[in-house]
Amino acid sequence: MEFNKVVRGANRAVQDEEVLHQILDAGFLCHVSFVHDGQAHVIPTSYGRKGNDLYLHGSSKNFMLNQALTSGQICLSVTHLDGLVLARTLFDTSANYRSAVVYGSPELLSGDEKLEGLRIITEHIVKGRWDEVPLGTEPELKATMVIKVPMSSVSVKVRAGAPAGDEDKVNFTWSGHIPLVLKALEPVADPKFDEQAEWTPSVKAFVNKYV
Amino acid sequence: MEFNKVVRGANRAVQDEEVLHQILDAGFLCHVSFVHDGQAHVIPTSYGRKGNDLYLHGSSKNFMLNQALTSGQICLSVTHLDGLVLARTLFDTSANYRSAVVYGSPELLSGDEKLEGLRIITEHIVKGRWDEVPLGTEPELKATMVIKVPMSSVSVKVRAGAPAGDEDKVNFTWSGHIPLVLKALEPVADPKFDEQAEWTPSVKAFVNKYV
Repeated sequence: MEFNKVVRGANRAVQDEEVLHQILDAGFLCHVSFVHDGQAHVIPTSYGRKGNDLYLHGSSKNFMLNQALTSGQICLSVTHLDGLVLARTLFDTSANYRSAVVYGSPELLSGDEKLEGLRIITEHIVKGRWDEVPLGTEPELKATMVIKVPMSSVSVKVRAGAPAGDEDKVNFTWSGHIPLVLKALEPVADPKFDEQAEWTPSVKAFVNKYV
Repeated sequence: MEFNKVVRGANRAVQDEEVLHQILDAGFLCHVSFVHDGQAHVIPTSYGRKGNDLYLHGSSKNFMLNQALTSGQICLSVTHLDGLVLARTLFDTSANYRSAVVYGSPELLSGDEKLEGLRIITEHIVKGRWDEVPLGTEPELKATMVIKVPMSSVSVKVRAGAPAGDEDKVNFTWSGHIPLVLKALEPVADPKFDEQAEWTPSVKAFVNKYV
């Protein structure tokens, strides 16, 4: 896996595998782009990570995943919006964020590897859940496609902290940054069951991750 | 502007302009996809909305925006992750979200339209800031590109609430959904200024939006 050279905003580029893994592990929503008939498309989906491999899943008829397999390439982005940066001019206004753009060649998984891919995705999203509830039915498994994306190249960018570049500006207006964080609210039990079980370890772990 | 037919997950498709606007106005981070040398790419950036037009900006050398202009097309996605849905089987596990995928033909803005585009983007991200601080320098304005994207077609999907489809499952494990929300923390004043002004209306409005 190589780190791409970042041309725009090179000062925000990071070439550190640990930072990449932290960014990928801090969430489970990615945006996948693909080409169809020469037109670019982008669709949100979930993912899992193990080492330098990402895993995606969907219906076996999922157009995006099939297109990625047919074209032999996939590009996806994971972005965490960490805050708004308010400077004393609009051009120095910015956002704090952590982002990874990943390129790779997807592989269709089957048999035990497919099950392992589903386990990795599940555990990535909500650690512990795999051991708490059954997978589902055989037809559901059959109707699901799982792909593995060994990351061949990545672009990682991070911006954090205060505004830059306006030391010489004269207007006296509040400047700084406003942090944004994704937080979990109180879990809501499924109303279709009359009585509810206690929170499982996976529920507690998820709430703690987004506390 | 037309609403695309959603094939996968058609039960989550929404064809309502007001819902589209709400999704677009609830955030300012989008993921833009584009094609270069037959390869799909996706990059996060900010945006503004007015009516059924979106506005993007960047360096005048910004590869993504220039590529969108050259190809005459752009596709971008705005997604809000609203929670995790934990069912009593893994296949019924899901996420709550609101997402819009937008297609359009970008137009390069200049002169007053370019300034108006910057105003729309600024006011979309942080309402009131345009009137609080100056734009910046003439060279900064010159080095900036602003494009307008009249939305020609959109796909809107929303999932909310409890798990579906596992009424007949027998395992007695906690199921339900865990809401996720993006929240603003206490604003952090720029440490490079010895004394700080009071929070401006734009700072207060932003904090209140993500309260």
